[in-house]
Amino acid sequence: MKIESIDFFYLSMPEVLDIGDGSQDATLVRVRAGGLEGWGECEAAPLPTITAYVCPMSHSACKPVKASVEGMNINTPEDILKISRKVHENSFDLLQADHTLSGIDIALWDILGKYLNEPVYKLLGYKKSYPKIPYASQLFGDTPEQTYRKAVQSREAGHRAVKFGWGPIGRGTPAEDEAHFRAAREGLGNDHYLMIDIGTVWAEDVETATLRLKSLKAVNAYWLEEPFSNMALDAYSALAKAEPVIPLAAGEGCNNFVQAAAMINHAGLQFVQIDTGRIGGITTAKRVADLAAKKGITYVNHTFTSHLALSASLQPFTGLKDDMICEYPVEPKQLALDITSNHISLNDNGEVAVPEKPGLGIEVNVEALNQYLVDTEIFIKGQRIYSTPDL
Amino acid sequence: MKIESIDFFYLSMPEVLDIGDGSQDATLVRVRAGGLEGWGECEAAPLPTITAYVCPMSHSACKPVKASVEGMNINTPEDILKISRKVHENSFDLLQADHTLSGIDIALWDILGKYLNEPVYKLLGYKKSYPKIPYASQLFGDTPEQTYRKAVQSREAGHRAVKFGWGPIGRGTPAEDEAHFRAAREGLGNDHYLMIDIGTVWAEDVETATLRLKSLKAVNAYWLEEPFSNMALDAYSALAKAEPVIPLAAGEGCNNFVQAAAMINHAGLQFVQIDTGRIGGITTAKRVADLAAKKGITYVNHTFTSHLALSASLQPFTGLKDDMICEYPVEPKQLALDITSNHISLNDNGEVAVPEKPGLGIEVNVEALNQYLVDTEIFIKGQRIYSTPDL
Repeated sequence: MKIESIDFFYLSMPEVLDIGDGSQDATLVRVRAGGLEGWGECEAAPLPTITAYVCPMSHSACKPVKASVEGMNINTPEDILKISRKVHENSFDLLQADHTLSGIDIALWDILGKYLNEPVYKLLGYKKSYPKIPYASQLFGDTPEQTYRKAVQSREAGHRAVKFGWGPIGRGTPAEDEAHFRAAREGLGNDHYLMIDIGTVWAEDVETATLRLKSLKAVNAYWLEEPFSNMALDAYSALAKAEPVIPLAAGEGCNNFVQAAAMINHAGLQFVQIDTGRIGGITTAKRVADLAAKKGITYVNHTFTSHLALSASLQPFTGLKDDMICEYPVEPKQLALDITSNHISLNDNGEVAVPEKPGLGIEVNVEALNQYLVDTEIFIKGQRIYSTPDL
Repeated sequence: MKIESIDFFYLSMPEVLDIGDGSQDATLVRVRAGGLEGWGECEAAPLPTITAYVCPMSHSACKPVKASVEGMNINTPEDILKISRKVHENSFDLLQADHTLSGIDIALWDILGKYLNEPVYKLLGYKKSYPKIPYASQLFGDTPEQTYRKAVQSREAGHRAVKFGWGPIGRGTPAEDEAHFRAAREGLGNDHYLMIDIGTVWAEDVETATLRLKSLKAVNAYWLEEPFSNMALDAYSALAKAEPVIPLAAGEGCNNFVQAAAMINHAGLQFVQIDTGRIGGITTAKRVADLAAKKGITYVNHTFTSHLALSASLQPFTGLKDDMICEYPVEPKQLALDITSNHISLNDNGEVAVPEKPGLGIEVNVEALNQYLVDTEIFIKGQRIYSTPDL
């Protein structure tokens, strides 16, 4: 099949709030080839991501992403790998390019799976898919009382693993953070996994992080996520060795393979968290999953948006039996739910599995998208180089 | 002073060629405050860089850069540091943001220097500026004969250090590369520094790189630059240990401090090369220079564009006496020359020094820019969120 068209759509909730909720807008990608359609999602700021596809060339290593994709053939997984390599070679000085590539790569795997009548994970070389225990991802409450109530609700909703993150955490005193950690544990009870996400607030400050280890140990935190900026290797590895030892998780900010490899090899992580919509798509995510498995580090998806993104995030590691946990967005905005007609529901064991259908196994709900479409136009020298395509 | 306006300008040569020459377009930034003007330059794709300044917010950590800059006060170096931190906190999920911040940060140092009547390097804490030996940066010829002629011309032009890069190198056989290396050395003679730049062509392929070490040693290469992708730490450190040992140089692709720190601490480099127009500006570049000095690694600027960018690139390490080499663009496009009214010329010793004038000491040639201005407009929901400002 020859790629006939690649279209980017900027979608948004009517109002975007200043909170740590990445499901308030979306960058969707549609690929058409051979009479088929594939869909992907970039977990990225829509407008810069779109411009990285359509902008004029700056020089030989700073080309728009479209220069490496338009008109390419796609019949085998190797063809997708070729496109991924070509984008890196042609656009490595265009910083945003990896986020743009991510949605395209996902859409290419989706369409190839439909063409070859196989789920994506089989095309990646896995024989079998293993269901994962979903952890419910949500924001801390503004007060420990709110955090407690959210934890009780999560327990009552049947979640076996819950992650609290962002909000006020890490910005006040150790005692204030401890009150939130305790509230979360008390609300959940002792038989649930509890993960804590700092959202990089401590930047590179190992001392501030170390002051929280005792209270994290006291609530039996399953992991401590992103205490530091992505790629702050030495801060991570210092904290990994500090007592009491709390397993560290990070990696969602990586936008290519070598960054994820650096985190795996030099940060002392026990969990590497990859967002397929940022790292360059399924192709790159699978490479990271292979490396993590080789190094004995658990791979976990990072997903906070739609079930299209969720399926794309699960495919790269669904064949790894020992990597049992997956992120599962529990309080996404309506937009993220409306993007797809079908959803990945929990099975009778409360687990999550990728659809056993061709491609990503997810139908995009084209009609529902219209209400969220953000009409966008870009002109260079009076020429329109982008306008929102028809759905 | 309160920041009154920040304006982005997209400039370009009439024709942009598919060659490794980053001086074919430019992203200029103008800051106005307290009746003064400061100028900066992002070494980055103009359109994505501008959109990262003006795009709508996606969530609390994916805000446009303007959210952290507009209306801020700037009276001391600490104020610039505060803005830099704020951008990282508010925009760490917006990949392009670091490239956007770079030009703003440079313009802020320029205007602060004018306000305090000091060259930027003094505001950075250096008492004295040390002139550097410039190396002439140019592309390999298409054939060894062309490379030889370019080398002879460089010697005749009086350059004491010359770097050849990109073009055909690394894409053919080791013997083909060796012919270019030898041609460069023969053209230069034995008393000149010769650097070789691979432009990341070997990605992560240590074996291919190792096959060239003997011929690099034979021509007494001063360094081997960017054999691999930026952040490919393990490929770099493996090559650094391979025999015969050739000093490695890299880092121009780093877009924040922690990436540069990772390269310094884990890649086995002897030279770290920082582009002030990419890494987040002068603020971040100075942090890298401090770390490099502490670790005994030589800091070198990466500059391929205007003399505004050159002054901004020199300031962070001009006070380091032992770091004697600097990159100096010798075949920039006319645009890069026309951006400024004054230029940083070689002194009688053939050395390069930052201007001993307030700020960056470089005057932008506003009238000359008009002919290069790329008229740009961006509309979201029918509202114009960006149009090329008046010069």
